[in-house]
Amino acid sequence: MSKLIRLGFLGCGNIGGGVWHLLDAMHDEILRRDGIDVRVTKALVLSIPEARTDVPRGILTERADDILTDPEIDIVCEFMGGEQPAARFMQRALEHGKTVVTANKMALALNWDKLDAAARASGAGLYYEASVGGVIPVIRSLTVSLEADRVTQVMGIVNGTTNYILTRMTQEGSDYADVLADAQRLGLAEPNPAADVEGFDAAYKLSILTSIAFHTRVPYEKIYREGITGVTAADIAGGREMGYTLKLLAIGKRTGDEIEVRVHPTFLPDSHPLARVDGSLNAIFIQGDYCKDMMLQGRGAGDQPTASAICGDILYAAMNADRPTRPSFANTAEADPALTFCDDWRCRFFIRAEVEDRPGVLASVAATFAGEGISIDSVRQSSARDGRAWITLITHEAQEKAVRRAVAAFEGGPVRVESVIRAEG
Amino acid sequence: MSKLIRLGFLGCGNIGGGVWHLLDAMHDEILRRDGIDVRVTKALVLSIPEARTDVPRGILTERADDILTDPEIDIVCEFMGGEQPAARFMQRALEHGKTVVTANKMALALNWDKLDAAARASGAGLYYEASVGGVIPVIRSLTVSLEADRVTQVMGIVNGTTNYILTRMTQEGSDYADVLADAQRLGLAEPNPAADVEGFDAAYKLSILTSIAFHTRVPYEKIYREGITGVTAADIAGGREMGYTLKLLAIGKRTGDEIEVRVHPTFLPDSHPLARVDGSLNAIFIQGDYCKDMMLQGRGAGDQPTASAICGDILYAAMNADRPTRPSFANTAEADPALTFCDDWRCRFFIRAEVEDRPGVLASVAATFAGEGISIDSVRQSSARDGRAWITLITHEAQEKAVRRAVAAFEGGPVRVESVIRAEG
Repeated sequence: MSKLIRLGFLGCGNIGGGVWHLLDAMHDEILRRDGIDVRVTKALVLSIPEARTDVPRGILTERADDILTDPEIDIVCEFMGGEQPAARFMQRALEHGKTVVTANKMALALNWDKLDAAARASGAGLYYEASVGGVIPVIRSLTVSLEADRVTQVMGIVNGTTNYILTRMTQEGSDYADVLADAQRLGLAEPNPAADVEGFDAAYKLSILTSIAFHTRVPYEKIYREGITGVTAADIAGGREMGYTLKLLAIGKRTGDEIEVRVHPTFLPDSHPLARVDGSLNAIFIQGDYCKDMMLQGRGAGDQPTASAICGDILYAAMNADRPTRPSFANTAEADPALTFCDDWRCRFFIRAEVEDRPGVLASVAATFAGEGISIDSVRQSSARDGRAWITLITHEAQEKAVRRAVAAFEGGPVRVESVIRAEG
Repeated sequence: MSKLIRLGFLGCGNIGGGVWHLLDAMHDEILRRDGIDVRVTKALVLSIPEARTDVPRGILTERADDILTDPEIDIVCEFMGGEQPAARFMQRALEHGKTVVTANKMALALNWDKLDAAARASGAGLYYEASVGGVIPVIRSLTVSLEADRVTQVMGIVNGTTNYILTRMTQEGSDYADVLADAQRLGLAEPNPAADVEGFDAAYKLSILTSIAFHTRVPYEKIYREGITGVTAADIAGGREMGYTLKLLAIGKRTGDEIEVRVHPTFLPDSHPLARVDGSLNAIFIQGDYCKDMMLQGRGAGDQPTASAICGDILYAAMNADRPTRPSFANTAEADPALTFCDDWRCRFFIRAEVEDRPGVLASVAATFAGEGISIDSVRQSSARDGRAWITLITHEAQEKAVRRAVAAFEGGPVRVESVIRAEG
């Protein structure tokens, strides 16, 4: 006996179309295998006459409430993107007891409380595997497979656009602006690239990822965020010479009861698994008390991979329709009161500075760092030119604030610090 | 209100001890978070007086039926290893309606039918995430996250011992026998290493992996199996020169309605993500129609990582105790009748041969391959020594049987084929 599951789509552009095609192609196999008869019964578009979609025109509607409040719809799939009206629509669907499936990290990260409350109140389910890392099954791995373990660290390459830009800068020695322009020309970066290159997108994803990994609410506002717009070809080349690769990482660490959450360009040793995740690929590196280290990598974007993850959620929700769950919100809504957020983390630092070419300058740099308790792992000094030279160094693990004090101490002096980039791994 | 879940352990050596410690450390957190009160109430050992275990002695028993038929036990965790009596005990537990959690690939792969039938008959659950790839959440990713997609390929490094041996042979240029002896000395290979180095272990895992990935029964006997005992330092060096890395891969491919399943040493281009998975790490590379390619990597063995995966299964089973499932057997027990097994797959081939150093020998080699429809991708000829030279070549994709015919055609002639190794990627 099969179970009929009726879907309502909010939006049906590229991703919605991908989901529609996959469900269509797999309909009979899913019915045979899982006994679930999945049908898309309504799809919201801005304008029916102007809608360009593969979804049958007979199911299109321009009224959101035709979907959000229709008692015949079981699962609402949100493909609109952006915070609003997506979040409002999802909330309304949840309030009406409909399970929601979404890939919308922005709407989730900024409306966590409301969506969770609505889902809890009505008992509806909320699924969002595709919101972080696209097709990479990281949400389910954290919520189910690692539920009995204690995750201590997640580090992710979760934004394909910035990884593409940094990969090309690394491989070609090109400047940021040139690669960005090329990526925009190729459609790999938005005309307004801020959401990606300033790290907003990665920070939304980190909020979701760490809330689940650490079983507590990690508000978006708690995340330190720094994009890649200030990264130079010289920084990347300096790191390469020392055996490091630059990535924009979303980092969450738990040490005892302290949590640190930050998004910033990060140097990784070339031997680190994340250092080899190139182009628009995404990957998430996880460490835990018992699982030790693991890494999941795959396509973080693209219509078909995103559709695959969304359809996985749809089927999971359909199979669990008789007992709606909120697979991770259920674990995370009540913040662990013991946990606090840390803003003075320890990591390694890559520092590049222009210095006067005279004896003792390296000694004075080292002394300034030593005065803040920072020890240097390795250092390179370029040969001088016009009386100036460059020092590139990597510190051992040091406190963020101590490094900031040391850098501030150089201000106005003969050592001109051009770049400070954190390093992990 | 919390739900009491009582576990019975079959065996409590290193892995059982790891599970016990993790459940103990996480008991209160799991109770608070998930409302599940997990307790180990009985543990089977061969001899109570001789048992060396951290599990409290008061719960030890020497009688399997104390656990298998005890109505008070909800979940039976099998840590015995080996086919029997593990498979018999699991079957009996399932028949008594108990959910079983196991990491035992051998017992599973060789007793698939019986265990599945017992689970179906009683409605009990059967979970085995840790049986393939240790802590890597590949079973759950295939059964849940990719349930709506069509998986076309799985390629895994699923045996840590052989990956450790091949990695050291590659990095050090050492011979197989020397590295094996060293691995045995370090406890990284068994005194009788056959299960690992002959590919049996990888084949058991491939049977499980492909049965799930392709939603059909893939009997262990259908798997082509070749171990690493014949691999030489010269093969590895020859591949390295051409930009390839040697791995023991478990490969499953689905092309239309044909399935091929094989375990053998395999050259991968250095740029392939699996080529960089070194030492005792495991990784599984998955391709599907919509998900495209993804890779999951992590610890394939070790007490703590294995315990993490097992405890993930235990919690999942506990949370679903009121509606027992067989998360993947349910999908796989009924073989898809349209699927057939292929024994003449296409792949690339690495061939190393000793030849007479005279003009025209390369042309004759190429002509023999061409006669079988095999084209050569790249070839290297060593400088001659004592009138003999070496040819190393990689073919384009070719039929397995055509390559075998070509190699047979050289027999007794001036071209002495020393190695034929498949290549993928």
